[in-house]
Amino acid sequence: MPVNAALNIILETLPKTQSKIIPLTMAHGCYLANDIIASLTLPTHDVSSMDGYAIRAADAVTSPANFTRVGESAAGHPWQGKLHPNQAVRIFTGAHIPNGADCVVIQENASSESNSDGALITLLTKGVKGRYIRPAGLDIKAGDIVIKSGTYLSARCIGLAIAAGETNATVSISPRIGILSTGDELVAPGETPGPSQIISSNALFLSAFVKSCGAQPVDLGIAFDTPGAIHAATAKAKNLDMVVTTGGASVGSHDHVAGDLLDGALYFWKVAMRPGKPLIWGNINNIPLLGLPGNPVSTAICALVFLQPAIAKLSGGHHKNNTFSVPITTNLTKNDLRQDYVRATFENEGGCLKVRPAYKQDSSMMAVLAGSDALIVRPPFDPPKRAGELVDVLPLPRQF
Amino acid sequence: MPVNAALNIILETLPKTQSKIIPLTMAHGCYLANDIIASLTLPTHDVSSMDGYAIRAADAVTSPANFTRVGESAAGHPWQGKLHPNQAVRIFTGAHIPNGADCVVIQENASSESNSDGALITLLTKGVKGRYIRPAGLDIKAGDIVIKSGTYLSARCIGLAIAAGETNATVSISPRIGILSTGDELVAPGETPGPSQIISSNALFLSAFVKSCGAQPVDLGIAFDTPGAIHAATAKAKNLDMVVTTGGASVGSHDHVAGDLLDGALYFWKVAMRPGKPLIWGNINNIPLLGLPGNPVSTAICALVFLQPAIAKLSGGHHKNNTFSVPITTNLTKNDLRQDYVRATFENEGGCLKVRPAYKQDSSMMAVLAGSDALIVRPPFDPPKRAGELVDVLPLPRQF
Repeated sequence: MPVNAALNIILETLPKTQSKIIPLTMAHGCYLANDIIASLTLPTHDVSSMDGYAIRAADAVTSPANFTRVGESAAGHPWQGKLHPNQAVRIFTGAHIPNGADCVVIQENASSESNSDGALITLLTKGVKGRYIRPAGLDIKAGDIVIKSGTYLSARCIGLAIAAGETNATVSISPRIGILSTGDELVAPGETPGPSQIISSNALFLSAFVKSCGAQPVDLGIAFDTPGAIHAATAKAKNLDMVVTTGGASVGSHDHVAGDLLDGALYFWKVAMRPGKPLIWGNINNIPLLGLPGNPVSTAICALVFLQPAIAKLSGGHHKNNTFSVPITTNLTKNDLRQDYVRATFENEGGCLKVRPAYKQDSSMMAVLAGSDALIVRPPFDPPKRAGELVDVLPLPRQF
Repeated sequence: MPVNAALNIILETLPKTQSKIIPLTMAHGCYLANDIIASLTLPTHDVSSMDGYAIRAADAVTSPANFTRVGESAAGHPWQGKLHPNQAVRIFTGAHIPNGADCVVIQENASSESNSDGALITLLTKGVKGRYIRPAGLDIKAGDIVIKSGTYLSARCIGLAIAAGETNATVSISPRIGILSTGDELVAPGETPGPSQIISSNALFLSAFVKSCGAQPVDLGIAFDTPGAIHAATAKAKNLDMVVTTGGASVGSHDHVAGDLLDGALYFWKVAMRPGKPLIWGNINNIPLLGLPGNPVSTAICALVFLQPAIAKLSGGHHKNNTFSVPITTNLTKNDLRQDYVRATFENEGGCLKVRPAYKQDSSMMAVLAGSDALIVRPPFDPPKRAGELVDVLPLPRQF
């Protein structure tokens, strides 16, 4: 099963959560469930984009040209008169263009006898109709959709919605993601592991990452390697939109995730990727289940590739992992049939970004992943690469 | 003042906040104030990286080779015996390598008479010493620094620190950033703007962005265009690590940010960038002050370029805006003396990422910025670019 085919199957089967209305001040990081429609036009009037003098362009077809200052228009304090020939109004950024004016000359190109009305103003450049004027509605028109349903609400979106006159937004309710670790070798963080035990760390990685994706993590604890344990752990949980397991997804006789799904549904089991071949997509107790491998690096990369888009889909939105091309610092041998996600760091060589694969790619090596900036994504059967050739990289989000 | 020079001055003058100890479960998005030193070695023993059979490589110099199954080693359930010649132990991923074994043959290359001890196991490949064995300490060694002071704690870092045996972390206290809007034309969100008024939206953009950078926003309200108003608004605030103002940073006679700093200190005033020329760096009431321009797009881009690294520095960390090269879809005329940040979207053409500049670059156009994926960063005097040529792009963080 190729990565993209697996991802499409996951996304197709996930429903959308309910929505609720919340203040925009709380909406950062949520997915919008209804379009935001502007109730205001911005700018409301034609306004100046610079500090200078508002004139009629027809009065300054040659330069220098002389004008009489007749008033001042500042943001929040418009000039109320009507401009007549050879009159100029002192104007500031964001202020209304006076009635009759059709151009602004910036203050750097003007000299002024004084700052009083009646003063002689000499403009050193010609007037150009429309210059330094932002027409009403340039940014937003009342009634327009300013942000579409399904959009992830960035800080920029919050600012835009507020400026458009909104105070609330209808957003998708944050999906509840159950997180279940599996394995007899695991002990909870804070406990001292025995000689053949390790501390369960994947669940806390997933919890932090799920939160940063805008979902609510729900801790389902640790299930031991016993048939039925996963079924039992998920049966207790309430109102989950999805369950994520780590470990036990392989074919070993101690791996029970796939077995526990047989009474539910097992949609697919193995994905042609490295790390992360044993990846399960199924349904348990009527909850969609994503079974991640147990190696920490496999868990993390599968979470990035599958879980983040799945959370976006549950939230009624869309997440795409954008790759771009960067030269590689060293040779790479040819790739096999699995899509490869090579841990790597960025280097900046005289302003040119390059990517260096980590010295070791073992899927147990958390420290290497934590220190990586990006993954080099190699499609199946990618030919060998020489140093300096371009490779596709997926930069790792800071929060990941 | 070039952008990089301005940024360096800002970063040089900022001190580091105090630190505190918190549980790792709360530490996602914080900056680490002390190194994290592993108290555990990982893996604790040599372990198998695959499901298969643990053997002595010397017993399988030819293939097929026959072995007798003598036991099983699973994660959490090690086999306690010592392996003798031509004996094999059934082994699973993460399980201890039995005493005497030096190689694992994966189950796909083995056939087994039965799953009981004493069964005949036939291995179809030769043994290779060390194959599929993760040596003890491969990922982490007790006593090693696993995460350095100053690191931003990603979800991956949380997982790594937990696995290394930690439960708490010493992190920098989240800086308190005062946010002050200035301008007679502003009304608070939720109010209905009069004919020459607009809703103050920059403060809520900044609040969301500051939070996503790991700092605490402190709302200082709106200061009107009156000399001393900024001084008064910041004097009331308690325990701020920095003040950010928006608007009033220009040279217009209604712009008072620079004037209000004269009793404090004004370090610089103008930066050679577009948008965002009027940018102030100073000190008011003994608090570092970053004066951002009032146009929403200028505010946002200056926040990305200066405020995010400033918050990282206050937190004892480091933030770098990494650019990379992407072909552009259309021609660009030559750039002037200001570093240009051109709003743009990504397009994917047959797997190749390209960047398309927005149709209009006015610094009042929030909707264009909210819909952008990236900024094309053009250095001063950048020559004209033709469609298909490479340009430097700064991808916009999702939360921004």
